[in-house]
Amino acid sequence: MLSTTARTTVRRGAKRARTDRADLYAVLDAGLVCHLGVLVDGSPRVIPTAYGRLGDTLYVHGSTGAASLRAALGHPVCVTVTHLDGLVLARSAFHHSVNYRSAMAYGLARIVEDDAERLDGLRAIVEQLTPGQWEAVRAPHRKELAKTAVLALPLDEASVKVRQGPPVDDEEDYDLPIWAGVLPLTMAWGAPEPDPRLSPGISVPDHIGHRG
Amino acid sequence: MLSTTARTTVRRGAKRARTDRADLYAVLDAGLVCHLGVLVDGSPRVIPTAYGRLGDTLYVHGSTGAASLRAALGHPVCVTVTHLDGLVLARSAFHHSVNYRSAMAYGLARIVEDDAERLDGLRAIVEQLTPGQWEAVRAPHRKELAKTAVLALPLDEASVKVRQGPPVDDEEDYDLPIWAGVLPLTMAWGAPEPDPRLSPGISVPDHIGHRG
Repeated sequence: MLSTTARTTVRRGAKRARTDRADLYAVLDAGLVCHLGVLVDGSPRVIPTAYGRLGDTLYVHGSTGAASLRAALGHPVCVTVTHLDGLVLARSAFHHSVNYRSAMAYGLARIVEDDAERLDGLRAIVEQLTPGQWEAVRAPHRKELAKTAVLALPLDEASVKVRQGPPVDDEEDYDLPIWAGVLPLTMAWGAPEPDPRLSPGISVPDHIGHRG
Repeated sequence: MLSTTARTTVRRGAKRARTDRADLYAVLDAGLVCHLGVLVDGSPRVIPTAYGRLGDTLYVHGSTGAASLRAALGHPVCVTVTHLDGLVLARSAFHHSVNYRSAMAYGLARIVEDDAERLDGLRAIVEQLTPGQWEAVRAPHRKELAKTAVLALPLDEASVKVRQGPPVDDEEDYDLPIWAGVLPLTMAWGAPEPDPRLSPGISVPDHIGHRG
């Protein structure tokens, strides 16, 4: 079960709340980028960034010089992952909505100091975007690791919301001569585009090509 | 031109910065949902939500009872819109990246009190998701409007970042026998799914059907 702190108790649209930890994992594991909220000089900043999950820890990374990552350390952060699954087109403007799955996690981020955990975190981030890729490419060397900060956020306090299905109109509106329904939306991979500098004779590996 | 305040001056990956206001409009106008960052009890909260733009004002809406919207009023907020255009698969883990377009706007949100502007803002939000839809559906009546808060954020302070193109590897890595390139990603509309309660004889209007 997910925690039920004040800020993770869904108040608006409570019937959309999901409370199983498996629902949190499902939303996070299906994502490519998250939106990381940090506090910089008293103002929120929302940064799109790659992430990875290992168990109940979410990892993000960045340059050791990035102000946003420094701002995240020791302060509360919020990570949100959103999948937009469709537009919910109702008969009234008021009842328009979207179908979506979203997860929100709050907590204090810590910087990962342990070298093995840093590598595990970076592997999780690369594998989140492209499963199978970490083993296919050159691993980070010492200088690269020194330039990379890895942050860990415990998934202790999180909420999940899901909306699915057709519009819900006011009863008296169902007779209006207005089309209503859902316009589904998906992410679609295109054909892989080889680097212009790719050496001859190297074909697209299966773990990449099967998506396109 | 966009403003160049301390927080909108792109420091990491400065060559990805775009400084024309037209670039800001292009990123915002191509989006469906934004991620709104607000401060709640000293902690950032990142909320996915619909939005619309009219000139240099961005509108979001929500229930008048929503704590997150109340938290946004009179406090600094950040709105981020992100388009993920592809995965940048390099020969080294370190040089992996994503192709994207993102816009970030900071400012103080105000609640829209004027009825005409409230309607304009709501229309912009509906039209952002589905152009042509506002005129096709029942307009909000007084009770619905009373339940809806519309917030306006001036687009005075904003930054835009864009990454495109193939990976950039270390020179000594180009000879490695590793596939590299870009895996493009797009959003794809599915076929419209009629509401099970749709009255017979109502076909999908052109402004919706042309997408599917």
